[in-house]
Amino acid sequence: MNAELITIGDELLYGHTLDTNAAFIGMKLAEAGIDLLYHTSVGDQADTILTALGNAMNRVDIILVTGGLGPTHDDITKKTLCKFFKRQLVFHEGVLKDLMKRYSDLGMAMPAVNQNQALLPQGAKFIENKIGSALGMVFEENDKILVAMPGVPAEMKSMLIESVLPMLKQRGPRTFIIQKTIRTIGIMEAAIFEKVSGLIEENSQIKIAFLPGYKGVDIRFTVKSSSEEKARQAIDDLVGKFQSRIGKYIFGFDDDELPAVIGGLLKERKLTLSVAESCTGGLIGKLLTDVPGSSEYFLGGIIAYANKIKTNVLNVPEDTISDHGAVSAQTAVAMAKGVRALTDSAIGLSITGIAGPTGGTESKPVGLTYIGLCDSQDTIVEEFRYGTDRERNRVRAAYSALNLVRKRLLNLA
Amino acid sequence: MNAELITIGDELLYGHTLDTNAAFIGMKLAEAGIDLLYHTSVGDQADTILTALGNAMNRVDIILVTGGLGPTHDDITKKTLCKFFKRQLVFHEGVLKDLMKRYSDLGMAMPAVNQNQALLPQGAKFIENKIGSALGMVFEENDKILVAMPGVPAEMKSMLIESVLPMLKQRGPRTFIIQKTIRTIGIMEAAIFEKVSGLIEENSQIKIAFLPGYKGVDIRFTVKSSSEEKARQAIDDLVGKFQSRIGKYIFGFDDDELPAVIGGLLKERKLTLSVAESCTGGLIGKLLTDVPGSSEYFLGGIIAYANKIKTNVLNVPEDTISDHGAVSAQTAVAMAKGVRALTDSAIGLSITGIAGPTGGTESKPVGLTYIGLCDSQDTIVEEFRYGTDRERNRVRAAYSALNLVRKRLLNLA
Repeated sequence: MNAELITIGDELLYGHTLDTNAAFIGMKLAEAGIDLLYHTSVGDQADTILTALGNAMNRVDIILVTGGLGPTHDDITKKTLCKFFKRQLVFHEGVLKDLMKRYSDLGMAMPAVNQNQALLPQGAKFIENKIGSALGMVFEENDKILVAMPGVPAEMKSMLIESVLPMLKQRGPRTFIIQKTIRTIGIMEAAIFEKVSGLIEENSQIKIAFLPGYKGVDIRFTVKSSSEEKARQAIDDLVGKFQSRIGKYIFGFDDDELPAVIGGLLKERKLTLSVAESCTGGLIGKLLTDVPGSSEYFLGGIIAYANKIKTNVLNVPEDTISDHGAVSAQTAVAMAKGVRALTDSAIGLSITGIAGPTGGTESKPVGLTYIGLCDSQDTIVEEFRYGTDRERNRVRAAYSALNLVRKRLLNLA
Repeated sequence: MNAELITIGDELLYGHTLDTNAAFIGMKLAEAGIDLLYHTSVGDQADTILTALGNAMNRVDIILVTGGLGPTHDDITKKTLCKFFKRQLVFHEGVLKDLMKRYSDLGMAMPAVNQNQALLPQGAKFIENKIGSALGMVFEENDKILVAMPGVPAEMKSMLIESVLPMLKQRGPRTFIIQKTIRTIGIMEAAIFEKVSGLIEENSQIKIAFLPGYKGVDIRFTVKSSSEEKARQAIDDLVGKFQSRIGKYIFGFDDDELPAVIGGLLKERKLTLSVAESCTGGLIGKLLTDVPGSSEYFLGGIIAYANKIKTNVLNVPEDTISDHGAVSAQTAVAMAKGVRALTDSAIGLSITGIAGPTGGTESKPVGLTYIGLCDSQDTIVEEFRYGTDRERNRVRAAYSALNLVRKRLLNLA
C-alpha cells in the first residue's frame, strides 16, 4: 500500500512554518508499513488543492490530508473536499450537541463560529477529535481512501495514532521500513568507516547511512521488508557487530540524548556534577536541566564569561590567566577545580574557549577550546580545535564536555 | 509566474530531516514575487521522481528541484532528469579540470568518485557551484523552465541567491508577497486584539496573522501586489498604527531577537548584566551569549540549581529559603541582589521556579515562577504562573526575565 500526504496552509509555502506534521506522519507511516511516496504542500487556495487532490488520486492508494479544517473563513479544506468528491455539506445535530456539551462542561459558552464544525460532508465517515472541535473525515472512491485531519499537531497526532493508522493497516499488504540508529560521539565519520570495514559490503540488504552532525555521528540502519520480525533481526545482528567494533564511542540508540545518558550514569553512581562555563555561557547547564529530575545529580555552577568571575568567584589564580591566558589548559583545570570546591560536587566540569566570530589570534585561533574535569582522584584536560562558526563551536564544546563526563564515568578517560 | 518546488530524498519522507531547504526557498520566492503553488517531496526513486516531474510540468511555469546531485550511487536526480527530458549524459572535460584544480589548490587529491560530476546532460545550461562539486542545471521546454540545485543547504542557498533568482526574475510578470512582522512580548493575543480594534477591519486588503508562541506574540502583515512599493507603503502605514496602540510591548521587527535587542540597550547605556538561574539552569546565559560580542555587557553568573548554591555562593539567607521557600519572591530578590554583589554588575537578574513535570504542591504548583531584578536604584520582582510543560515553562521564564531587563532599561518597569 502506498500513500501521499497533502499538507495545506499558506504558512508552509511561505517558509514561516517548518512542516513538523509531515515529519511526524512520515515516521509513523514508515513504522506502520505504509509506503509514503509523495508529500505535497499547497496553500489555502481551492484551485491548487483540487489539482493536488486530482494528481494524488491518480498516483497512490491512500491520501492523507492535514490542515484547513478550522471554523474560520480561511479554512477551506472541507468545502474543497466536498467539491472534489461532489458532496453536499449537511448539518449534523449530534455533532453540534457534543461540541456544546464540551464547552458547557468547561463552564464556557461555545463561540458562535464553531457551529460551522457541525456542517459535514454527506456520506463521509467521521473520526472523533478528543482535543479540538474539527472532526476527521474519511472519503472512499474507486478503491482509494482519503483521510482529512486537522493541522493542529496535538489533534492530528492523537487522531493518527488512535484511529487512522489502525484503520489503514487493515487495508492491504504492507512493506515495513525498519530502522535503528546508533548514536556516537568523539569519533569522525571517516574513522568509523575504517573501523567497520567489510561490514557494509557484507550486508548490502541493509541500507547504512552515516549522519554527521555537531553533536556526533549517527549511523542509521534501514531495511524494507514484508516481514517486520526478519527485518528487525537482521538489523539487530548488524548493530551488534558495529558495537563490537566501535562500542566505546556509542552513547545510545535512536532517541537517546547525551545529557539524559549522563544523568543515568551519575544517578547509578550517586555522584553529583557542577559546571564552570566560559564560552558556552550556560549551554551545558541548560542541556543538563532539560532532563526532568536532573536536580538529583546536577547542582548548578558558574557562568564565568568575564575573567573577573573566573578569578573572584571560581578562584582561578590571576597568574594563571596572565601567564597562560583565559583560554588555556591551565585555566580550564583551575576552573574545574574551582567549581568543584565551591559547590562541593563529586565532579567539576569546565569549558573555556574562543567561540568566535572574533577574538582569535595567530597562536589562539577562533575555535580553540579547553575542557577540564576534576573529581576526587584526578584532573583531566582536553584540547579541541573547532572551526569559525560560533553556534557550532558552542554546541560542539558542550557535547564534548558532556562526553568527557561519560568517558570518565565509564573508565574510558 | 508560478512555481513548484520538488525536494528529493528518502530522509524527507521518513521524517528524519525537517525540510529547511523548502522553507528557505519558499521565503526567497515570495520576496522575489514568484508564486510558489506546490511543494512536493519524493524519495530517491526514479519512478516517483518521474511522476512528480510530469505532474509539475502540467501545473506550473517554473520547477525548482533540490537534492540527489551528489556523486554516489544513491544520487539519481541527474540520471532521472536525463530520462525525463530525453537527453544523454555527456562528459565535460572543462568541468573535470576545474574540479581537479580546486582540489589541487587545497593540496588534496580528488576522490575518484567525483569524476561523475563531470558527466552532465546534453543541451542543459549549467550553474556554477562556488562551494561544492555539483553544478546546477537548467532545462527549458515548451516555455517551461526547470532548475536543479544540490540539496546541501549552503550550496543551494548560494546558487539560488546569486544565479537562479536573478535569472527567474527576468522571465515574466511577478506578484510580490510583501510581509512585515511585529514582535511583541508581555501581552496576550486577546489583549492585543482588543487594543487594535478597528484597525483589522479598516485594512482588509492586508492579511494580518496573530502568531502566539512561548516567546511572545508575533503579528504578521502580508500583502500580495504587483507593485512592491505600494504594498510596502500600505504595510508600513498600518504597522505605524499598531505601534501607537501597543508600542511598549513591541521589542522588534522581523528577525529581531530579544537577547540581541537587550544587548543593544545595555551597550548604549554602558551597563553590565549578570544572572542567577535556578529552574532555567543556564538558559538565560546561553541565550545572551548566543549573540556575538555579548562579552561587552554580559559578565556571567550563577546556575543555582541546588539550594546550597543559592545559600553558599549567592548568599541567599538560609532563613529566606526556610521561611518562604526556594521558589518565592523573597528568594528571587535575594538571588538578584546576591549575583549583582558577587559579580559587581550594574544589573542582577534572577529566576526561581518549578519547571515541572514534578515538584509542585497545592500552594506552589508546577509553573509558578519568580523573576527578580536588582540595579543601583531599585529591586523588582514579578510572579508568573505558567502551565505544566517543562520545556515551555523554562523558555517562557527566560524570555520573561529578559523582558524585565528591557522594561527596566526603557523605564517601563
